Amino acid sequence: MAKEKKLVEAITSMEEDFAQWYTDVVKKAELVDYSSVKGCMIIKPAGYAIWENIQKELDKRFKETGVENVYMPIFIPESLLEQEKDHVEGFAPEVAWVTHGGLNELQERLCVRPTSETLFCDFYKNLIQSYRDLPKVYNQWCSVVRWEKETRPFLRTREFLWQEGHTVHATAEDAEARTVQMLNLYANFCEEVLAIPVVRGQKTEKEKFAGAEATYTIEALMHDGKALQSGTSHNFGDGFAKAFGIQYTDKDNKLHYAYQTSWGMTTRIIGALIMVHGDDSGLVLPPRIAPVQAMVIPIQQKKDGVLDKANEVVSRLSNVCRIKIDDSDKTPGWKFSEQEMRGIPVRIELGPKDIENNKCVVVRRDTREKIEVSLDDIETKVPEILEAIQKDMFERAKAHRDSHIWDAHNYEEFKDVAENKPGFIRAMWCGDEACENKIKEDLSVTSRCMPFEDQERISEVCACCGKPAHKLVYWGKAY
Amino acid sequence: MAKEKKLVEAITSMEEDFAQWYTDVVKKAELVDYSSVKGCMIIKPAGYAIWENIQKELDKRFKETGVENVYMPIFIPESLLEQEKDHVEGFAPEVAWVTHGGLNELQERLCVRPTSETLFCDFYKNLIQSYRDLPKVYNQWCSVVRWEKETRPFLRTREFLWQEGHTVHATAEDAEARTVQMLNLYANFCEEVLAIPVVRGQKTEKEKFAGAEATYTIEALMHDGKALQSGTSHNFGDGFAKAFGIQYTDKDNKLHYAYQTSWGMTTRIIGALIMVHGDDSGLVLPPRIAPVQAMVIPIQQKKDGVLDKANEVVSRLSNVCRIKIDDSDKTPGWKFSEQEMRGIPVRIELGPKDIENNKCVVVRRDTREKIEVSLDDIETKVPEILEAIQKDMFERAKAHRDSHIWDAHNYEEFKDVAENKPGFIRAMWCGDEACENKIKEDLSVTSRCMPFEDQERISEVCACCGKPAHKLVYWGKAY
Repeated sequence: MAKEKKLVEAITSMEEDFAQWYTDVVKKAELVDYSSVKGCMIIKPAGYAIWENIQKELDKRFKETGVENVYMPIFIPESLLEQEKDHVEGFAPEVAWVTHGGLNELQERLCVRPTSETLFCDFYKNLIQSYRDLPKVYNQWCSVVRWEKETRPFLRTREFLWQEGHTVHATAEDAEARTVQMLNLYANFCEEVLAIPVVRGQKTEKEKFAGAEATYTIEALMHDGKALQSGTSHNFGDGFAKAFGIQYTDKDNKLHYAYQTSWGMTTRIIGALIMVHGDDSGLVLPPRIAPVQAMVIPIQQKKDGVLDKANEVVSRLSNVCRIKIDDSDKTPGWKFSEQEMRGIPVRIELGPKDIENNKCVVVRRDTREKIEVSLDDIETKVPEILEAIQKDMFERAKAHRDSHIWDAHNYEEFKDVAENKPGFIRAMWCGDEACENKIKEDLSVTSRCMPFEDQERISEVCACCGKPAHKLVYWGKAY
Repeated sequence: MAKEKKLVEAITSMEEDFAQWYTDVVKKAELVDYSSVKGCMIIKPAGYAIWENIQKELDKRFKETGVENVYMPIFIPESLLEQEKDHVEGFAPEVAWVTHGGLNELQERLCVRPTSETLFCDFYKNLIQSYRDLPKVYNQWCSVVRWEKETRPFLRTREFLWQEGHTVHATAEDAEARTVQMLNLYANFCEEVLAIPVVRGQKTEKEKFAGAEATYTIEALMHDGKALQSGTSHNFGDGFAKAFGIQYTDKDNKLHYAYQTSWGMTTRIIGALIMVHGDDSGLVLPPRIAPVQAMVIPIQQKKDGVLDKANEVVSRLSNVCRIKIDDSDKTPGWKFSEQEMRGIPVRIELGPKDIENNKCVVVRRDTREKIEVSLDDIETKVPEILEAIQKDMFERAKAHRDSHIWDAHNYEEFKDVAENKPGFIRAMWCGDEACENKIKEDLSVTSRCMPFEDQERISEVCACCGKPAHKLVYWGKAY
């Protein structure tokens, strides 16, 4: 019993200290470990398996829209990084510099890619000659490095894994359409697979990507009411094309600059999974992304026939879900704690009495509901329960999100909400960066996005300065 | 016609200049492009799709043996790299050093991983406490950097993609078994999927991995008679465990050092694919690894019904193979050249006359054989033809390899073969590194491996020095 208590006690409760709860969960669910390289994490099997499922599902959706995968070099020469002015200003302060190769000093410093726009542009400028070469819709899966000062597993690390798509188009309209298409792809992926509801919208000038004309974003709300930017899609117009000389000849043999986009999703999204769905017993994974969807835990497994029956259940269910058995010599209670900590969507308890009654007990991780299922029906019932969990998790997350959106019509209301009510703040904004800066400095709140779908005019004036305002903005404290 | 000639003319013939032929093929088959970072390559969609198929197949085979994937940091602190003496000596001269993070100089230099033994050891030393924690069978897919002076696409690049498995075991026997298991997995993968026959064996002391007790290798023979090391598996004994303090307590609570292995396969294997199977028309891909297995090329596609029928063929075959259609406005001859250059295993020609006769013509890329197939039978015949190609490609490669293995009983014979007969040289070796050095200096030939399966004693004395010899060695010029 002492040992059983240990696993649960190891976690700080969410109410007590959300940040510590998060740190406890990533460690105790064995998602990551700290490494000897400050700010870089080790992604352990349980964490990496989630990323593999994210990759598999996103990659499939990418390819359905015509994306092709490539691989670009890990290094960017300093002169290449400097070729687009806004871009280098955004990234140069936070890159890692390679100065020596083997025993020799390099003639030119190389940075470890923080993002690969410049490499793709350098590549595209030779690849693209004619309108026949367009569009190019390339993506790569890789790691990138940004020299952050404060780091937290998944949320902000000096190295992280991601995909970065980089596309080239003949027209501004095509580029805009691809930018929106990918943002919607991310949003649908989050909602359908990760059960995370998101707000889709546009970043303000202040918050957009270095070098972009427009940045679109999906913003999710964590359990503690803070926002997490979960995926972004950038329209570069022809800015990079002009900086790098990416031109094509059209059907009439006239020369044009090309239009570009980029879009990315990172291992950060695993942080969102944890903070949207987790509870005081640990991780709670939506079935569609869970590496293991069901864990069979035999009760009194030394009794005749129990393990045989449990293995038969595993074998029958392995065609309809990702299933494992825990037949170790730990106590059932300890196994329950572990399965809960790891966020496995259901456990299937099976003991001698259950076998006598030709049934098993399916326990939902999300609600802890215990469901008796006849052993004759497991192949249909277990997938049904998993689907119900998926749906309910999304609905619960959405209800939580929707009940944490607050309208602010003036600065007093804004301040009150920012200080007392965790969540998104909806407020009108005049468009002046000075107001964004004031709100950030006074209240540690940033503009998250100008939503696409929710552009209701809740007042006629900016909630900060009182001047006329036409834009509704979602604001929030953010990770 | 001028344009059609261009594609074929662009390739140097293999006989004329094999190295140039190789360079031409990687460019014209659009596998890679050169980047602005010297020695780093851009892997283009046609090349990356091959790597994705390699990953998918290898990863599946890994997981069937209990491998779990993880991700370790991209950087290694200098002090960590130095912790195992032989290892640092092997790698320090060829790593890239990060000295600055953002605007600040780092207190300790970090190298970009050339391989991750030291990171895994640092991780394992905390992770492993008890015999219950063993074995650990982890792997990662990533890129690594080695500051090579001379580079060639796929074969030797400053950055390359690979997987590196790192395992920990309780006993020397378990580590040895895993080392052999993974080598056999690589060998079977090469032979069954890539249609590349390999020699399995052990590296000599001189050629083994920095820090290993034993290195096992698979060696393949290229079309030009040079060898290519295609995958390696290392048994570290408890050497790294002692250097890093990886210890576990056994059932009797006694403390032991653990035993370790590592094993890797890289994008280099794509170079082998090209040089084993390619011909003067370009790439020839074995069906099991080909991203596109069949290309439908409509003839007189503007005639009524041709494109409809061609699309119907694509649709019917898409359930049994990876198929595409080339319905661009290029001439059929140009499309044939492109399909051949890209190594697509079969093309399916379909014109008005074929349709009239309810047939199509399947043309094998490897033999150029034209096979008339009734449109009623395509779902069974096309997969049969693909399987026949797979089998025949392996048999041809094996026949070529076997006809390029030469026995040398003394130094005169050795010299004659090395200078005049491209291929593997089988010769006895006394075990003295001086003989290996002499052979390398005089003849540019290195020991490839001491074969497991072919330890025939072809003479009693070393082919170099004439002293008694018990070991048969495969020698060769190598990439």
